[in-house]
Amino acid sequence: MSDIKKVVLAYSGGLDTSVIAKWLQTEYNCEVVTFTADLGQGEEVEPARAKAEALGIKEIYIDDLREEFARDFVFPMFRANTIYEGEYLLGTSIARPLISKRLIEIANETGADAIAHGATGKGNDQVRFELGAYALKPGVKVIAPWREWDLNSREKLMAYCDEHNIHVEKKKGKKSPYSMDANLLHISYEGDLIEDPWAEPEEDMWLWSVSPENAPDEATYLNITFKNGDPVAIDGVDKSPATIMEELNKLAGANGIGRVDIVENRYVGMKARGCYETPAGTVLLKAHRAIESITLDREAAHLKDSLMPKYAELIYNGYWWSPERKMLQAAIDETQSVVNGEVRLKLYKGNVIVVGRKSDDSLFDEAIATFEDDAGAYDQKDAEGFIKLNALRLRTAAKKGRDLL
Amino acid sequence: MSDIKKVVLAYSGGLDTSVIAKWLQTEYNCEVVTFTADLGQGEEVEPARAKAEALGIKEIYIDDLREEFARDFVFPMFRANTIYEGEYLLGTSIARPLISKRLIEIANETGADAIAHGATGKGNDQVRFELGAYALKPGVKVIAPWREWDLNSREKLMAYCDEHNIHVEKKKGKKSPYSMDANLLHISYEGDLIEDPWAEPEEDMWLWSVSPENAPDEATYLNITFKNGDPVAIDGVDKSPATIMEELNKLAGANGIGRVDIVENRYVGMKARGCYETPAGTVLLKAHRAIESITLDREAAHLKDSLMPKYAELIYNGYWWSPERKMLQAAIDETQSVVNGEVRLKLYKGNVIVVGRKSDDSLFDEAIATFEDDAGAYDQKDAEGFIKLNALRLRTAAKKGRDLL
Amino acid sequence: MSDIKKVVLAYSGGLDTSVIAKWLQTEYNCEVVTFTADLGQGEEVEPARAKAEALGIKEIYIDDLREEFARDFVFPMFRANTIYEGEYLLGTSIARPLISKRLIEIANETGADAIAHGATGKGNDQVRFELGAYALKPGVKVIAPWREWDLNSREKLMAYCDEHNIHVEKKKGKKSPYSMDANLLHISYEGDLIEDPWAEPEEDMWLWSVSPENAPDEATYLNITFKNGDPVAIDGVDKSPATIMEELNKLAGANGIGRVDIVENRYVGMKARGCYETPAGTVLLKAHRAIESITLDREAAHLKDSLMPKYAELIYNGYWWSPERKMLQAAIDETQSVVNGEVRLKLYKGNVIVVGRKSDDSLFDEAIATFEDDAGAYDQKDAEGFIKLNALRLRTAAKKGRDLL
Amino acid sequence: MSDIKKVVLAYSGGLDTSVIAKWLQTEYNCEVVTFTADLGQGEEVEPARAKAEALGIKEIYIDDLREEFARDFVFPMFRANTIYEGEYLLGTSIARPLISKRLIEIANETGADAIAHGATGKGNDQVRFELGAYALKPGVKVIAPWREWDLNSREKLMAYCDEHNIHVEKKKGKKSPYSMDANLLHISYEGDLIEDPWAEPEEDMWLWSVSPENAPDEATYLNITFKNGDPVAIDGVDKSPATIMEELNKLAGANGIGRVDIVENRYVGMKARGCYETPAGTVLLKAHRAIESITLDREAAHLKDSLMPKYAELIYNGYWWSPERKMLQAAIDETQSVVNGEVRLKLYKGNVIVVGRKSDDSLFDEAIATFEDDAGAYDQKDAEGFIKLNALRLRTAAKKGRDLL
Repeated sequence: MSDIKKVVLAYSGGLDTSVIAKWLQTEYNCEVVTFTADLGQGEEVEPARAKAEALGIKEIYIDDLREEFARDFVFPMFRANTIYEGEYLLGTSIARPLISKRLIEIANETGADAIAHGATGKGNDQVRFELGAYALKPGVKVIAPWREWDLNSREKLMAYCDEHNIHVEKKKGKKSPYSMDANLLHISYEGDLIEDPWAEPEEDMWLWSVSPENAPDEATYLNITFKNGDPVAIDGVDKSPATIMEELNKLAGANGIGRVDIVENRYVGMKARGCYETPAGTVLLKAHRAIESITLDREAAHLKDSLMPKYAELIYNGYWWSPERKMLQAAIDETQSVVNGEVRLKLYKGNVIVVGRKSDDSLFDEAIATFEDDAGAYDQKDAEGFIKLNALRLRTAAKKGRDLL
Repeated sequence: MSDIKKVVLAYSGGLDTSVIAKWLQTEYNCEVVTFTADLGQGEEVEPARAKAEALGIKEIYIDDLREEFARDFVFPMFRANTIYEGEYLLGTSIARPLISKRLIEIANETGADAIAHGATGKGNDQVRFELGAYALKPGVKVIAPWREWDLNSREKLMAYCDEHNIHVEKKKGKKSPYSMDANLLHISYEGDLIEDPWAEPEEDMWLWSVSPENAPDEATYLNITFKNGDPVAIDGVDKSPATIMEELNKLAGANGIGRVDIVENRYVGMKARGCYETPAGTVLLKAHRAIESITLDREAAHLKDSLMPKYAELIYNGYWWSPERKMLQAAIDETQSVVNGEVRLKLYKGNVIVVGRKSDDSLFDEAIATFEDDAGAYDQKDAEGFIKLNALRLRTAAKKGRDLL
Repeated sequence: MSDIKKVVLAYSGGLDTSVIAKWLQTEYNCEVVTFTADLGQGEEVEPARAKAEALGIKEIYIDDLREEFARDFVFPMFRANTIYEGEYLLGTSIARPLISKRLIEIANETGADAIAHGATGKGNDQVRFELGAYALKPGVKVIAPWREWDLNSREKLMAYCDEHNIHVEKKKGKKSPYSMDANLLHISYEGDLIEDPWAEPEEDMWLWSVSPENAPDEATYLNITFKNGDPVAIDGVDKSPATIMEELNKLAGANGIGRVDIVENRYVGMKARGCYETPAGTVLLKAHRAIESITLDREAAHLKDSLMPKYAELIYNGYWWSPERKMLQAAIDETQSVVNGEVRLKLYKGNVIVVGRKSDDSLFDEAIATFEDDAGAYDQKDAEGFIKLNALRLRTAAKKGRDLL
Repeated sequence: MSDIKKVVLAYSGGLDTSVIAKWLQTEYNCEVVTFTADLGQGEEVEPARAKAEALGIKEIYIDDLREEFARDFVFPMFRANTIYEGEYLLGTSIARPLISKRLIEIANETGADAIAHGATGKGNDQVRFELGAYALKPGVKVIAPWREWDLNSREKLMAYCDEHNIHVEKKKGKKSPYSMDANLLHISYEGDLIEDPWAEPEEDMWLWSVSPENAPDEATYLNITFKNGDPVAIDGVDKSPATIMEELNKLAGANGIGRVDIVENRYVGMKARGCYETPAGTVLLKAHRAIESITLDREAAHLKDSLMPKYAELIYNGYWWSPERKMLQAAIDETQSVVNGEVRLKLYKGNVIVVGRKSDDSLFDEAIATFEDDAGAYDQKDAEGFIKLNALRLRTAAKKGRDLL
């Protein structure tokens, strides 16, 4: 355990990663650099500085990554209308590659030879952190204390704190019993009461959204403008990527939108119950599909749909920094230069309802689509040949006695 | 136009198909057999008999196909969690192959050499009807009057009726301005006011569901039981496929569930606005995914997700009766014998919320998934090797100088 | 037939297209512009000028498109290791979009409002020409005489020539009974004796290659250098794309390489027997796979393989100029910047045998792959965790009684 | 290491597995059951009995699995025209699941709680053996000595033999320096001289085939009959699956057919050079595609092609006994009931040339495909509507200014 000289730790300032910082200093006898990121989780990150200093940390990184996160990770992912297993919007998954990237950048800047994280050995996050780190710095060492130590309960952690004089802030009010993660895209809940897939979550678990029942009785209407496949304005006012996420989280959360409650398949092989609040994401996915519906070519849209499950799987499994994700991104991005225009939405008690879409790049051609006289824009007689040739192989098969029933 | 002796007409009893019946008799000088099906559209089909008789039709088929439709078409499609272009539940598409099948069966029984339908030359339905007919009876002739005649307005149709003494029933109340289609799975609206994708549909267009605003303030809870991937019971009471559809349509429609408003890509090449109400379908899709989430193997689930867009496209485009649809069905059905169990749902003002799932075939293993001590069910150290080997190719690439940023 | 003023005709100078030129002048009473391209078919194109002049054509385009064809069509296609239905290297298919592009460019330059081609109504080429033309100039009119006229035999065509004073050159020697097409990538044969799929082609049908039996008894060795996925040099000597095709056609053809004899599925719905000689293409596909085998990441390679059938189908069906082909091309091209290096090949009596591959971008790591001691480059113990976690879902299923036999 | 009571060892009778048998007895202090299979590797398996007895083994299984291997593993795989990474016919991969299955059956019969194998920690075979074992008996323990012990050279193994009185037969002649594996489908070579991807294998490495140069100057013609997608007869004579493999191996090997020399991507993350001889397999793949070319529907064929890379990957990676492989198998098998008929082949100096195919289930329709007058079987005018509607979306895009160049 002695050949590591300096390790960059993904540090939240909380109990677990504070213990890890001390444990790394003690067990590995190495210097620890802390890295704390504001990804929009809704908690101050500055307080992490004093905590790190109290642990004797000399190199402390505290970064506001909100804009980069929204612009370079969330939005590119949303161009693909990405959903994992039909339900999950990948809120945690998409944050990990950015953290890996910064961990490695900091390792390079500080001359560290290792990184460390506080993810457990049963989850996906260890995989995501480490695949990213290895892909960006192949010789890096990775320390995952939860796979090594025996401090596997809150009691043991607290005892360790006492023993090593780590000051743990008592949170006001009841501590949530859930394992949580939050960023601009979502907040997640796992463990405790919701480990049983038959148990309905209690209302007070949810932190970011009101329930549909408690949402306003009046609908909220809003317009979202897209440019090159990305949202750029709300109600005609241009906003930065992170601001769009923040405002939509508020608007949608207040209307009871974005709760997801699923059993998902982890990359490490087990099924796990997860609950998520993704207010902005839920709105943006719906809006993005709507603006694509009038601007995207049919076959491009279908090809995107057929590639999406693979793309979602790659992100979920931690392969953001991989050649195959870049291939799919290239295909997806190729289509988005025409995905421009405006979508009108109605938010109401958990519902996101598209009520209008318009675009200068619209391929919707009223002259052709109309039930009224189309003045020759479309020759209905063409349909006969179209059908006849598409049917030819089926007819030939049927003539030869093939039974297609 | 004279070599056709007898034609089976898909006959609704309404204005259009009544005109077609007469027109076929007149223009083709051939015998007409009418076929009227109850697919759960919510209108009496028996009245079509008198209307057909009034037109001088001698062979009149009126069939209740509701159970067959739900059991052999809707349910198999739902096993794949099928959605077209992310939004459309294929309510019209999935009814067409059953109608084609019956048209051909009746043609064979009555010795008819042709079929006819009332679909226009711009839509998908002509394709679906005709591909099905050609696949099942390769030598059949198809008459699509809307592609031939010049009766291309309501006024001309009415004039034709006057001229040929066709009695047209005046519907009570205002006639809907929309082109509509309905069956157990959905009711659809096209044309008129909603031809403009920017225009929000007026509330009185929707016939099957209340708006979320008008839905009850109390949630409705229900349980759905699945067997071999199909729903078989509601709240523990076994019901037939069509009954399940009918009851869920009522329950979900009353809770404001199932409205869809989209611009979709037609197979014949244009984009079209469509609005749909699919109450039961919306509930069943959510419930089916939920029961799969605990019973289906991860890789089977992902493979299903990756095949689904193709499968949906096949159904949308009219290739139900095709070797490729049968291939995909075989793959899908292979997975469903373990999709058994119960899903608990909450219906509330437009929302379908899964609040529980349980199954004797559940693969959810609390012993492994738990955040608590798992008593050795899972060795966290295995994760290191798992990550290391999955990372090996990425590390090798990075060592060779590949930039994955 | 009178609203067309000027038409650009894809003109070979042969009997069929000479008749078409005259027929267009006569039937459509319009001006005809001829376009003749050298795509490497191995026949002089200049003689087409005099023939066109004799028909009274005033605007005559004769272009040498060999380099553009190889560089912008054949090579991009080969980056995907493209094969249709496991056997066909798409020699005809890939030439059509270039011809469409030039037809439209010339139409735009000359103010023509239509294009015309000599492809029949049963084949794929009409589709490819016309889809390309419509995609690049949506208002263009297309004249396909073979779908219109009744000159459906060689005799009628000859009679037409006599009647209209069209001079037809008598070819020396026996005229081939096959319908043929040739360019830098291949020569194709259809019809006549090989319409029966059970009949072996006669040896004198093949024009570009000797039979394996007649090939030299000594093997030919050569090296091909790739850069960014494209071949750039033979035996260390840089050559232009067209030159590479021409030299490899000679070398490989002389060694009996590149014959293909298949029954293929046409886009218009029927099966057809086709024989092809693709000497250079056969060598390049093998060589490209070999250079990719050491330079491409595994998952990128597998993703390419899984996208290839779709990509091949798009090209075969005539969708080169489409958003979906461009999407796939973007994904494919994304991977090729590292596909650099050299492949050593042995050509012998029909066989293309890869005997070596090397690259500065090689990901082959002898230190890891070796059966000998690897000095710690790979920790065999990692394999246990890798297997255990990959097996976890299968074990869970088996524990629950699932039978995977 | 003491909780294992009885282990079933995949035992070849050679040096490595003899050492393993002894090592298991010594290190694990457990009873060892040996299992030796005849998979058509071309060596006697009976001699393994005496060797096992000499090691004190009491439960000795020696099985002739050739028919089962060909019928239930090789043939089903070949129905999909399966090739890994464009070149590899999966000869080793497809044998592993059968061995796993027998190991587990024997474990169940003998009450063993573990299995053991002689695969190294760097290869794919460990993964294949163990995934299969875990899928079929989730609680089984697996011992992989090469990942545990330090006997990592031939010298150490020999020393171990001396020390433990294990009698090692001296093979006559020079021992091959390659790591090899053989069964009815192929023989493989890895390591030593061919570890360098630039090095051409020496001619004396190849054991099953003559070189094309040394193959007869006369071609060999033969007919293969297929039924339900599987080969059932050669030259009209019905033969068992294993016999077909054996005869074709001889015929094709004698004609220089079936050598493959590649760099492949292993599941454990590295690239490796492999050389293979797959004579029968090479012939059967070509023949199977040929019989499919006239009997299979186009879209079924294309869907098969698009699923094949995934299917090949699953087999390569060791997931034969998995729900996802069974899904794909169901889809593939669904298509094969019509894959009946006869293929005529010419084998000549490394070439497998299809020279004819015929079938009562042929979909090839000469009446439609002909260049001659088709007497109305196909209406060329249908092509116009077919093209027009397929072009509609492209034209609409172009009208809106989209540039598809």
